Amino acid sequence: VFCHISILHLGAFSRRYQDAFVSMLVADVSMFGSPACPLPVSPAAERLRYILGEEDELPTPTLFTEMDTLQQDGDELEWKETARWVKFEEKVEEGGERWSKPHVSTLSLHSLFELRTCLQTGAVLLDLEGYSLPQIVDEIIEKQLQEGGITADQRENISFVLLRKHRHQTKRTKHRSPADVGKTGGAASEERTHTHAHTRTHTRSQSMNDIGDTPSSDQLKNKFMKKIPRDAEASNVLVGEVDFLDKPFVAFVRLAQATTLGGLTEVPVPTRWGPQPASYHPVSCHVICVLFSDVAYKARDRDDLIAGIDEFLDEVIVLPPGEWDPKIRIEPPKKVTPADKRWEVRSLRELRASGQTPLQRGEGGGLDGLASFCGGLYLDIKRKLPWVFSDFYEGFHLQSISAVLFIYLGCITNAITFGGLLGDATDNYQGVMESFLGTALAGTVFCLFSGQPLIILSSTGPILIFEKLLYEFSKSNGIDYMELRLWIGIHSCLQCFVLVATDASYIIRYMTRFTEEGFSSLISFIFISDAIKKMAGSFKYYPINTAFRPDYVTAYKCECLAPDPSESPCPEGGVCVNVTDLDWSQLSKKECLTYGGSLQGTSCKFVPDLALMSFILFFGTYSMTVSLKKFKFSRYFPTKLRKLISDFSIFMSIMTFVGLDMLMGLKTPKLIVPTELRPTRPDRGWLVMPFAKNPWWVYVASFVPALLVTILIFMDQQISAVIVNRKENKLKKGCGYHLDLFWVGVLMAVCSFLGLPWYVAATVISIAHIDSLKMESESSAPGEQPQFLGVREQRLTGILVFVLTGVSIFLAPILQYIPMPVLYGVFLYMGVASLSGIQFWDRMKLYMMPSKHQPDFAYLRHVPLRRVHLFTLVQVICLAVLWTLKSTFLAIIFPIMILGLMVVRKLLDMVFSQHDLAWIDDVLPVKEKKKKSKDEDKKKKGKEKRKDKKKTDDLDDEVRNAGVCCPPLVIRSMTWIIPV
Amino acid sequence: VFCHISILHLGAFSRRYQDAFVSMLVADVSMFGSPACPLPVSPAAERLRYILGEEDELPTPTLFTEMDTLQQDGDELEWKETARWVKFEEKVEEGGERWSKPHVSTLSLHSLFELRTCLQTGAVLLDLEGYSLPQIVDEIIEKQLQEGGITADQRENISFVLLRKHRHQTKRTKHRSPADVGKTGGAASEERTHTHAHTRTHTRSQSMNDIGDTPSSDQLKNKFMKKIPRDAEASNVLVGEVDFLDKPFVAFVRLAQATTLGGLTEVPVPTRWGPQPASYHPVSCHVICVLFSDVAYKARDRDDLIAGIDEFLDEVIVLPPGEWDPKIRIEPPKKVTPADKRWEVRSLRELRASGQTPLQRGEGGGLDGLASFCGGLYLDIKRKLPWVFSDFYEGFHLQSISAVLFIYLGCITNAITFGGLLGDATDNYQGVMESFLGTALAGTVFCLFSGQPLIILSSTGPILIFEKLLYEFSKSNGIDYMELRLWIGIHSCLQCFVLVATDASYIIRYMTRFTEEGFSSLISFIFISDAIKKMAGSFKYYPINTAFRPDYVTAYKCECLAPDPSESPCPEGGVCVNVTDLDWSQLSKKECLTYGGSLQGTSCKFVPDLALMSFILFFGTYSMTVSLKKFKFSRYFPTKLRKLISDFSIFMSIMTFVGLDMLMGLKTPKLIVPTELRPTRPDRGWLVMPFAKNPWWVYVASFVPALLVTILIFMDQQISAVIVNRKENKLKKGCGYHLDLFWVGVLMAVCSFLGLPWYVAATVISIAHIDSLKMESESSAPGEQPQFLGVREQRLTGILVFVLTGVSIFLAPILQYIPMPVLYGVFLYMGVASLSGIQFWDRMKLYMMPSKHQPDFAYLRHVPLRRVHLFTLVQVICLAVLWTLKSTFLAIIFPIMILGLMVVRKLLDMVFSQHDLAWIDDVLPVKEKKKKSKDEDKKKKGKEKRKDKKKTDDLDDEVRNAGVCCPPLVIRSMTWIIPV
Repeated sequence: VFCHISILHLGAFSRRYQDAFVSMLVADVSMFGSPACPLPVSPAAERLRYILGEEDELPTPTLFTEMDTLQQDGDELEWKETARWVKFEEKVEEGGERWSKPHVSTLSLHSLFELRTCLQTGAVLLDLEGYSLPQIVDEIIEKQLQEGGITADQRENISFVLLRKHRHQTKRTKHRSPADVGKTGGAASEERTHTHAHTRTHTRSQSMNDIGDTPSSDQLKNKFMKKIPRDAEASNVLVGEVDFLDKPFVAFVRLAQATTLGGLTEVPVPTRWGPQPASYHPVSCHVICVLFSDVAYKARDRDDLIAGIDEFLDEVIVLPPGEWDPKIRIEPPKKVTPADKRWEVRSLRELRASGQTPLQRGEGGGLDGLASFCGGLYLDIKRKLPWVFSDFYEGFHLQSISAVLFIYLGCITNAITFGGLLGDATDNYQGVMESFLGTALAGTVFCLFSGQPLIILSSTGPILIFEKLLYEFSKSNGIDYMELRLWIGIHSCLQCFVLVATDASYIIRYMTRFTEEGFSSLISFIFISDAIKKMAGSFKYYPINTAFRPDYVTAYKCECLAPDPSESPCPEGGVCVNVTDLDWSQLSKKECLTYGGSLQGTSCKFVPDLALMSFILFFGTYSMTVSLKKFKFSRYFPTKLRKLISDFSIFMSIMTFVGLDMLMGLKTPKLIVPTELRPTRPDRGWLVMPFAKNPWWVYVASFVPALLVTILIFMDQQISAVIVNRKENKLKKGCGYHLDLFWVGVLMAVCSFLGLPWYVAATVISIAHIDSLKMESESSAPGEQPQFLGVREQRLTGILVFVLTGVSIFLAPILQYIPMPVLYGVFLYMGVASLSGIQFWDRMKLYMMPSKHQPDFAYLRHVPLRRVHLFTLVQVICLAVLWTLKSTFLAIIFPIMILGLMVVRKLLDMVFSQHDLAWIDDVLPVKEKKKKSKDEDKKKKGKEKRKDKKKTDDLDDEVRNAGVCCPPLVIRSMTWIIPV
Repeated sequence: VFCHISILHLGAFSRRYQDAFVSMLVADVSMFGSPACPLPVSPAAERLRYILGEEDELPTPTLFTEMDTLQQDGDELEWKETARWVKFEEKVEEGGERWSKPHVSTLSLHSLFELRTCLQTGAVLLDLEGYSLPQIVDEIIEKQLQEGGITADQRENISFVLLRKHRHQTKRTKHRSPADVGKTGGAASEERTHTHAHTRTHTRSQSMNDIGDTPSSDQLKNKFMKKIPRDAEASNVLVGEVDFLDKPFVAFVRLAQATTLGGLTEVPVPTRWGPQPASYHPVSCHVICVLFSDVAYKARDRDDLIAGIDEFLDEVIVLPPGEWDPKIRIEPPKKVTPADKRWEVRSLRELRASGQTPLQRGEGGGLDGLASFCGGLYLDIKRKLPWVFSDFYEGFHLQSISAVLFIYLGCITNAITFGGLLGDATDNYQGVMESFLGTALAGTVFCLFSGQPLIILSSTGPILIFEKLLYEFSKSNGIDYMELRLWIGIHSCLQCFVLVATDASYIIRYMTRFTEEGFSSLISFIFISDAIKKMAGSFKYYPINTAFRPDYVTAYKCECLAPDPSESPCPEGGVCVNVTDLDWSQLSKKECLTYGGSLQGTSCKFVPDLALMSFILFFGTYSMTVSLKKFKFSRYFPTKLRKLISDFSIFMSIMTFVGLDMLMGLKTPKLIVPTELRPTRPDRGWLVMPFAKNPWWVYVASFVPALLVTILIFMDQQISAVIVNRKENKLKKGCGYHLDLFWVGVLMAVCSFLGLPWYVAATVISIAHIDSLKMESESSAPGEQPQFLGVREQRLTGILVFVLTGVSIFLAPILQYIPMPVLYGVFLYMGVASLSGIQFWDRMKLYMMPSKHQPDFAYLRHVPLRRVHLFTLVQVICLAVLWTLKSTFLAIIFPIMILGLMVVRKLLDMVFSQHDLAWIDDVLPVKEKKKKSKDEDKKKKGKEKRKDKKKTDDLDDEVRNAGVCCPPLVIRSMTWIIPV
C-alpha cells in the first residue's frame, strides 16, 4: 500500500531576483536515486556496482515523487505541489488547476551539476529511524547544526517553515466567482511574484506544526492512487525560498522504514534549494530520483550518492539546443520494456532461432519426432493440464461477450454459406442444417479438449471441393456417397492418429514467417474477395432499372399472362392447372411462373432499391467497424469507454445497420437459419451405417482418398495453428499441435458417422477470435502507453460461440432481422483486419513509399531495401501462383501447396544471407540429425553451429531490442571525463 | 552554389577492440561550430559574445556536413560517407545502401568532453589559404610536426591515408548477384569488422593522391543538391583508425575562402579521432558543427572554439537515460521557426494586441477614423498598388487550376440555388439567369479592383430574405419592384461611400477571435445543415417504396386513367382536350396530369433507386474528398504527387462520382444551367429605368430600407473580410477593407440598374478559396517539415472563376453531367473544412476529452481548463441564440447580430482576466480617445496602460513562442559550473 506525501525540505536565501523572473524560477529543486538499468562498469561508479551488486535485498519499489514548493497563500505559508513523477513527469500548469500531459523530463546540465554540489555540502541522513515529520525535521536540523551548516537562531525558523501544511493538486482551490477572478487576475499574478520572497514574521504566531499524523481524507480519496503500483513508496522534494537564511539548506533523508508521515509517506528524500535557480530546469533533477532510486535505496554514504550522479551523467542523452526546443514536451515513448518483462518477447523467437520449434517451449527434448511414441501428445496434455481451471474462469470478462457475439455471427454466416454450397454440391445430403449441427458439435468438442482453444473450426474451401468431387464420383459409379464418406472419415481419423503418435506435427518448425504470412494473406484475400463478390452478387440478383425515368412511371409494369391453353398445359418443373381457374393478374411472380404463365412488361426483371440498399449496409457496416476500432486511439472520452467502444465496435455497427435496415423496411436479403431439427434431405437419417450399401473393397480402397483428406486437414489445421500461436500474440499457455490434431481426427470420424461435414481450423475467424480477445495493460503510470499483454486464453468464448450456433435454430426469430449485406461487411472487415499487422503486408506497402517516408522498421535499418523488396516480391509471386491455382480444380490440393511455400523458403536460403533472413523472416532450424550421422564433421560443425547460434542470438537480441526500447550496447569501458 | 565534399581528417591508434564491437564503433568523430541563437551572457563565453558581436560580416552560410570514415574496400583504403547533416542528421544504415530518416541527433556527454579535449591538443588552422586537398594536408602535417604531435616518419603515412579517395553514398555499390551476396553475407560482415584495424602496407604502392581536382560527375548529378540551400558551404569530418599512430591525430581547419577541393568543398572543418570510440555516440558531435557554425566561422583562435563548446554545453537539453532509449530516433519537430521569420507571425497579432487594428499594418496613424477624409481608402490603394503585377503573375501555378475548378463549381451551385430561390421569391424578376450574370459581373469586378481579391462574392441568405419581403411589399402596395429596388441600391451605394469616406471600417478592430469564430462557425453550420437538408430532400422528392416485395412485382403499376368526360373537361392549370382523342395509357405522368387524367396504381408515388443513389453520390463525394485531402499526410508516393492529389482532391472526387453516375445511368438530378442569354422573366429588359413607374416620394423614402441593406452588407462584408485576413492565413499583401467596401457599393448600384441580385462576401466559399491556395515550403533540409508559408494572393483565380461562371451558358453540355448530390457533397465538405482549424472548434472538442488526453495547446498551459470551458460555453450559447434567431423572420437582421457578439465580447472583459483573454481570444483595443478627454486621469492611466501594454506584449511574445519553437527565456546570468 502506498501513501502519498512529502517529507523534507530546505532553507532560504535573502537575495531577491528580478520580479519578472521570479515566478518562473520559484520551483527549483533536485533529488536523485540511481540507475534502474545495469551499469556494469564505470569509473568512479565502480563502487556503484558494488552497492548494487548486493542482491540480497528486495527489488526496489516504484517511487512516487512529488515536488512541493513553498508559497504564500494569503497570510500563510504553505507547500504547494507543483510536479510529480511516477514514470514520467507531470507538472502543474500555470493556471494551477491542471496537470500537464505526462512527458519525458528534459533537464539542463546545470541542474545536475548543482545537485551534485549540493549533495556534497548538504546533510545526508541515510536510514533514519523516522516516525513523524517533526522528529525527522529535528534530526535534520540537529545534523546541520553539528556540521555548522546553520546557526542556532535559524533553527526555529527552519523548523517552522518545514512544518507548514501541504496543499496537493487534488484539492480544489477555493472557488472564486468569475467576476472576482477577472478583476483580480492581473493583480494576483503580480502578488504571486512577491510571495515567497519574505517569510513574514507574523506567520510565526501560528502553530508550529500544520501537519497531522494521519492521512487526510483528501489523500485517501485521491483517484490517482489507481495509477500507482501497489508496492510503491513515496518520496518528497521540498523547495522554497526564505529570507532568513544566507546560504542554501540542503538535506537528503532516507528513512529506514517506509512510514506514513501524517499524510506523507517516507522514502529516501533528498531535498535541496538552488541559489541560482535559473540554471536548473525546475523538474530536471527530480527525474533522476525516479530513475536512480536503486542507488538512493542502497547508498551507504554521501559518496555513493555522488557516484550515482556521476554515473547518471555518464548515461544521459544530450539533445543539441538548436535542433530541439526545450518547451516541447516529449511524449513518452510507446514502449519501454522493463528488464524483467523482456523474457516474454524473447522465449519463442529465441527458441525458433536456435533451431527449436515452437512446439517445445521449455522442453528441450523431443526434437527427434519419431523416436518417442506419442511423446508430443503427452507433452501437450501435460502442458495443458495446469490450465484446466483458468481456461474457464479467465473467460469471465466483458470482452468475452463482444468476442462471442462477433465470432458467433461470423460462424453462423459461414455455416449458412458453406451449408448452402455443400447442399448444392451433394444434393442436400449435407445441407444448412447439417452445417449448423456439425459446426456446433465439432466446435464445442474442440474448444473443450483441444490444445489451442482459440482456434475456431469451420468448413473450408478445399473440403468443400473434395466433397463435391466425391459426390460426383459416387453418383456416377453407383457407390453410396454417405457410406463411402464414412469410410474415408474413419481412415482419415486413423491416419491422423498415426501422425499424432509419430509427432509428425514437428514439421511445422519449418513454417517460418514466410510460410505463415503467405498462407494467412492468401486466406485473407479470399475472404475479402468473397465478401466483395457476394456484395456484387446482389447487384446481379436485384438488377437496377437504370433506364427508369420518373416521368414515365406509367410505362412500367409487369403482368402475368396466362399460357396458351392449347400448348403444354404442364410446364416443366411447374404445377398443372386449368388456365381458366386462375385470376392470372393476381398471381405473384413466382406463382405465375410455377403455373406456367409468362411475365411481360418493362419492370419484370428489375428490383428497385435493394441492390443500393445492400451496398449501403455492406459498406456502412465495414466502415463503421473500422472507424469504431480506431476510436480507441482518439482523444475523446475516458480510456475505458473508448476501449469498450472499440471492443464492441462490430456489435455496434451490426446493430446500427440492422436498425437502419428495419427503419427503411426494405426487403433486403436476411439471415435465415433452419428452424426445425431434421436432416436437410428427408431420405437420410442422423446416423450413417458403415456396412451394407457398398461392396467390401470400397472400405479398403477409401484409404487412398483418405490420405488426401488427411494431408489436406493436417496442413490446413497446423498452419492455422501456427498462425494462432504466432509469437506476436504472446500466448502464455502454450500450444498443443498434437492434441489439436488428435481431436480433429476424432471429430472427423464422429462427423462421418453422423453425416455431418468435416471441420478444420479456419484461419481468418481464428485470427478474429484472437483479435477480439486481446488484453492491454491498464496503463499504470501516467504517460505510460498501454502495453499488449497477450490474449485472454480460455475455452469459454469458443464453447459459447458453438453452443449458440447449436441453438440458433431457436434464435431464428431474432436472427431473421439481420440483413446478409451487413454480415458480408463483417466478413470484409475480418479479411482486412487479419491482413493488417502482418509484416508481409507492411513490406508490400513499402513498394509505394519513397524510402525517406518509410517507417522506421527494425529490419529496414539492417537489411538493404533492395533485399527487402526482393523478398517481398518472392512472396507476392508465390501468392499470385497460389491464387491462380486456387481458382482451378487444383484448389483441392491447396493446403498441400503450403509445402511448396516451405520449399521456396528453403531455396531462399541460397539467395539471402542468414543475417537478412533473421531480420525479415526466421532462420530455419539446423538439421541436427545429419550432424549425428556425419561424425567426422561433428567437431568442426559443432563449433560453427555454436558460433552461428551465438550470432543468431546476438541478432535476435538486436531484433528484439530494436522493436523494444532498451540499449543493446551497454557502455563497458568508459570513464567519466571531467572537462577542465 | 554549393559543392559537396570533404576536407580533412586524422590519425590512428594501435589498440584493437573486441571484434564484436568494432563495426559499431567505427565511425567516431566530432566537430562543432557555435550557437545560432543569441547567447547574450555567459561565463567563459563572454568572449563568444565579443566574437559574434562583430556584426560586420555576412550571415553565416548554411553548413552541409558530411562524415566519412576510413574503411577497407578490398585491398584499398577509402573514405566512406557514413552520415550527413543539413539541419537534421541522416545516417547510412547498416546495409550501407540507405539513408536513415532524418532525425534529431542525440549525443552523449562523453563525446562532447572528448571533443573538447581533442580541440585543446589537436592542430587548429584557422583561415588557411587552401586551394587543394594535398596542400592543406601538407600544412596540417607541418603544423603537427612543429607542435610535436607526430614524428617525421609518420608523415608520409598520414598524408597517404588522408588522400585516399572518397566514396559517397550516392554511388551505388557494385551490384552483386543475389546468390553471391547470400553466400558471402556472413563472411563479409565478419571481414568488415577487421577492415580498418590495419593499414596494410601493400596499399602503399598505390598513388599518393586518389582525389581529383574537379567535382566528379557523380557529385554534379547528385539530386540531393536540391535539398541544400544555395548559399550553403560544406564541411567534412574524417574519422579513421590506423595502426601506425600511437596517439590521436586531430586537426581543425577553416579555409579562408570556400573552395571546391576536387569534388570536395571548403569551410571550417574540424576533425578529430576518438581514442575510445565507445564513449561518443558516432553522430553526436557532428551536430554541434551544424549548430555552432557561427563560432566556427568567427573564432579567432583555439580558445574561442573551446569557449564555443562550453557555451554549447550550457545550452544542451539532457534526457534521462532510463526514460528514453537512445535507439529511438527523434523525429524532427514540426516547426522550428528561424529567428528571421518570426516577425511574420508577430506583426498582425502584435498590432492588434497593442490596440491597433489590422487595418494599419505598418501605418501607425489613422487611428482616429473620422479625422482624415477617405484616409483609409487612400492607404488601401497605396498598399495595393505595388502588387498590381504580382497579383497576376503569381496566379500562374498548377494549384490555381484546382482552386478555380473547385471554387467555380461552388459558385455555380450557389448561383443556381440562390437563383432558384430568388426566382421563387420575386416571381422570376430575378431568376437563375440573373443570378449567373450577376455573380459573373460582380465577382469579376471585385476580383479585379478590390482590396482583398481572395474574397469571393455571392448572394447570401439575409439579402434573399430582404428581397422576398421587398417584393411582397411592393406587390401588395402597387409599387414597381424593380424601380424601388434600383433606388434602394443607389441609396445604399451612397451610404457605403459615406462609410468608406469616414473610415467606418475601423470598427472591425473590435472583432476579435470571439466574434470572427462565432460568425464563421455559424455560417459553416448553416452550410452543413443546408447540404444535409438538400440531401434529405431527395428522399422526399424520390420516395422509396419500402413495401416493395420483389415477388409481387406483378402487383405494382401506375396507370393513367382518363377523366370522366362529363366532369370538368378542363382541369385547373391544365390543358383542355377531348378525352377520347388521347390514348391515355400511353401518356407520361406529367402529360396525364396536364390533360386532367388521374394516376392510379401502387407504384405511382414512388421513384426507385434515385434517392439511395443520390445518397451514395453525396456521401461518397464528401468522404472521398476528405480522404484524399488527408492523403497528403500519408507515407505513400513522393511528396509532390501527394500534394497534387491533395490539391485536386475535390476535382478528383467530383470526377469519380460523376463517372459512377454516368456508369449507372440513373436519372439522378443534374446540374442544369440556363442556356440562353435572356432575362428569366420575358417582360423585363436588361436595364431598369430609374424614373417613371413609381411616385417621386418613393425615391426619397427608399433611403430607409437602404439603411438596413447597408448595415447588412457592411457587417456581412467586413466580418468575412476579417476572417479572410486572419493572421493564421499569413497574408502578405495586406488587407483593404475600405477599398472592398467601396467596390461592393459600386456593384450595388450597377446591379440595381441591371436588375441583378446584390452581392457580398461569402464566408465559407472565401475560406475554401484560401484553403485551396495555401502554399507550403518545399521542405528543404531533409527532415524539415514543410511550413505553411501563406496563401497564393492573386486576382487571377477569382477572375477566372467568375469569367467561367459567365460563360457557363456555353458550358451547359458539359455541366449537365454533374449530379446535384455530388455538389451537395462538395458543399458539405466546404462547411466541414471551414470549421476545422478554428480554435473555437478545438475548444468544443475539449469538452469531450478527459484532460489528460487533451492536446498540448498553448492556451491550455496557461489558462485553467475551467475558464476555457466557460469561454467556450459562452460562445456556444451565443451561437445557439443566433441559430434560433436565424430560423425566424429576424434572419434579415442577422448580420447586425454580429454587433451583438461584439457586445458580448466586451462584457466578457468583466468575467475573464486580460491574461486569460490574451490566450484564448485577443485583447480589445484600448480606447485612446477617452484618455484624451479625461486629462486628470491621464498620468495614472497612461502608466497603467503602458504597463498593460508591456504585459500584453510579453504575453504576446509568449503566445507566439509557445506556438513556435524558440526558448522565450534566454538564460541571462548563469555561469557554467564545472563539477569537481
